[in-house]
Amino acid sequence: MSDESFQSYYPESTQHCYGCGTLNPKGLHIESFWEGEDTVCRFTPEPYHTAVPGYVYGGLIASLIDCHSTGSATAAAYRDSGRELGSDPPLRFVTGSLHVDYLKPTPLGVPLVVRGTIHEIRGRVVVVRSSLSAESITCATGEVVAVRMPDDWLESLTRPPSG
Amino acid sequence: MSDESFQSYYPESTQHCYGCGTLNPKGLHIESFWEGEDTVCRFTPEPYHTAVPGYVYGGLIASLIDCHSTGSATAAAYRDSGRELGSDPPLRFVTGSLHVDYLKPTPLGVPLVVRGTIHEIRGRVVVVRSSLSAESITCATGEVVAVRMPDDWLESLTRPPSG
Repeated sequence: MSDESFQSYYPESTQHCYGCGTLNPKGLHIESFWEGEDTVCRFTPEPYHTAVPGYVYGGLIASLIDCHSTGSATAAAYRDSGRELGSDPPLRFVTGSLHVDYLKPTPLGVPLVVRGTIHEIRGRVVVVRSSLSAESITCATGEVVAVRMPDDWLESLTRPPSG
Repeated sequence: MSDESFQSYYPESTQHCYGCGTLNPKGLHIESFWEGEDTVCRFTPEPYHTAVPGYVYGGLIASLIDCHSTGSATAAAYRDSGRELGSDPPLRFVTGSLHVDYLKPTPLGVPLVVRGTIHEIRGRVVVVRSSLSAESITCATGEVVAVRMPDDWLESLTRPPSG
């Protein structure tokens, strides 16, 4: 087990994500961790992340589910192949599809918890299901089909500049 | 026809959305308009809205599709009942579910176009399908099930303070 988030193990050249990149100074800095067999992300929205007054913007909820799920897919893929998180060659997942059901308005001003389960690992695809709760009440559920980044794309990002 | 966006007709007390509220100074200010039978949103992401270098963050794409679709649902509901956009009593839609398929990486640094079609109007529900393109190439498609806000919730937001 580690105190470091899944996202902190991403290759440095892929650490710029607005949602979860540690190197994006304007980003949300979403962080995900194992909790037993589940993955968990905790995030407190800013006051301006509003939908209507008092409630959290749905696009932020989608962003939390998105980045938490691709992070969870990455961690699951390492674990499934018996490898240490972050070991070379790097594994990195992007979003193939994102589905969010908004069950009830999500209150603003309290920490949100996104809890993910690894639903399926199939070749280069990992399906992550999740629920987002506020004060122990489930406000949204999500399903992300995460797809492992093509090796040549990841290599082109991680390769040192040739010139 | 109007030069004003759908969102600019929302009741002032519901103009704080991080995605599309005209009164959210930190927000994205997403704007949607009719173009014939379609609805269209044009948006150029900021340089920090990155997924991996050179490409747009998927959570931003979800946000664009989300706000454009609820705006489109609102405009369609007014039109369907033969009413002027923004006329009283107000109609306002929220997101019941959001689905996005990411077909290819979306390049950063160029304007994005989200084009929506009103797929279905059924009671208080409007289903909006959309495609997001960059330089005329479709990079993502979306489907939003938009639900008309409960009258009592909308009234509680638009009612003048009683104290």
